[in-house]
Amino acid sequence: MKGKLFLIPTPLGENFTIQNINSDVIKTLQGIRFLIAEELKTARRFLKKLDPSCPIDDITFFVLNEHTTPQEFEQYLKVAENGNNVGLLTEAGCPAIADPGSQVVNIAHKNEIKVVPLVGPSSITLALMASGLNGQKFAFWGYLPVKQNERKIKIKQIEKRSKLENQTQIFIETPYRNISLFNDIIAVCEPETQLCIASNITQYDEFILTMKIKKWKLKIPDIHKKPTVFLLLS
Amino acid sequence: MKGKLFLIPTPLGENFTIQNINSDVIKTLQGIRFLIAEELKTARRFLKKLDPSCPIDDITFFVLNEHTTPQEFEQYLKVAENGNNVGLLTEAGCPAIADPGSQVVNIAHKNEIKVVPLVGPSSITLALMASGLNGQKFAFWGYLPVKQNERKIKIKQIEKRSKLENQTQIFIETPYRNISLFNDIIAVCEPETQLCIASNITQYDEFILTMKIKKWKLKIPDIHKKPTVFLLLS
Repeated sequence: MKGKLFLIPTPLGENFTIQNINSDVIKTLQGIRFLIAEELKTARRFLKKLDPSCPIDDITFFVLNEHTTPQEFEQYLKVAENGNNVGLLTEAGCPAIADPGSQVVNIAHKNEIKVVPLVGPSSITLALMASGLNGQKFAFWGYLPVKQNERKIKIKQIEKRSKLENQTQIFIETPYRNISLFNDIIAVCEPETQLCIASNITQYDEFILTMKIKKWKLKIPDIHKKPTVFLLLS
Repeated sequence: MKGKLFLIPTPLGENFTIQNINSDVIKTLQGIRFLIAEELKTARRFLKKLDPSCPIDDITFFVLNEHTTPQEFEQYLKVAENGNNVGLLTEAGCPAIADPGSQVVNIAHKNEIKVVPLVGPSSITLALMASGLNGQKFAFWGYLPVKQNERKIKIKQIEKRSKLENQTQIFIETPYRNISLFNDIIAVCEPETQLCIASNITQYDEFILTMKIKKWKLKIPDIHKKPTVFLLLS
């Protein structure tokens, strides 16, 4: 019997207790001896917080980052071929969504290793639920271009598509550039377009608010350096 | 102080225990006396399963369906204006994502009622994580057209867009039409296009598999009448 690849969501910030974690995540982690992780330090800290008696030294960690090659992923999954379960966890939220990991999942499918996604927080899903915007049709763009002129053009395109297809448009930014992205959005979008800003979701200072652009022009949200999801519907 | 609108995810099928439910969901439901729900019968059954001593008779239920008017939603949210928390739950998964609810959330924002999304299962999110397809860019289409010729045209359009934008395309179907949709997909898509079929997610017979169309032509998945998410990337 081959092992399985478990996809393990992690909390969106420091504000969590073991009770907030799905019991399937806790049970899976208790049994796992092979773990693919984005940052070993935070992975270890997470395991210790869930179970202070966790035998960290018995766990083999595999590093997942932009330099990891398909050959290395194949190597990581060898232990599953040999009957061991393997876990995959990323920095915050769900592996492989706006986060690395899809490549190793894809290789698992090719090698007929069963993939099991576990339930946990996704900032995109939570933001969409709470936005009040269309949840029957939506698109996620990841990061927009960094250069301001290109970014403004992209925002206009995204706004047009949302109108044309009645499709909620979702995107993110590196937290220290949030305000700059916000300023570009209110500069180029139509006054009647709806914008949801969802910041520090699940944390003490969670902020989620949907308003028309014309109203956002009167209010700068406190999102500097805070993980934020932007959602737009024209 | 106004009350808040809590968005409460529910399990994706009958296979769950109270340990599978996020503690914030349990705590929130214990305190709630006003609940907007899609099906009162299943909402009551869910509450009783979480806590057999739950004082169901003390809870005021508001019905959410396609006939509910904005005026009725305003009325439902009056109790939040008066300081009470209100819960919103739908049949399976996250409210307002491929499920009703976004309209009442939108009205909550307009009335400055804080919206709090709780963590729970979303079949779309879980399917995307487990697909191994692009999780940095994706779009959800909801249901495709019912008429076969229109549906085939739509599938072709969706496949084209996935190629043009490297965007994973996600859609669903009424479970008794799954096989018919599957047949249309393998009939019109390119042999090299990747298709993920994710069925009965989180349940005992969970089935998640990504393969190229040319391989799916050799295998009819057992998805008849099972809730299934389809994901495609060309």
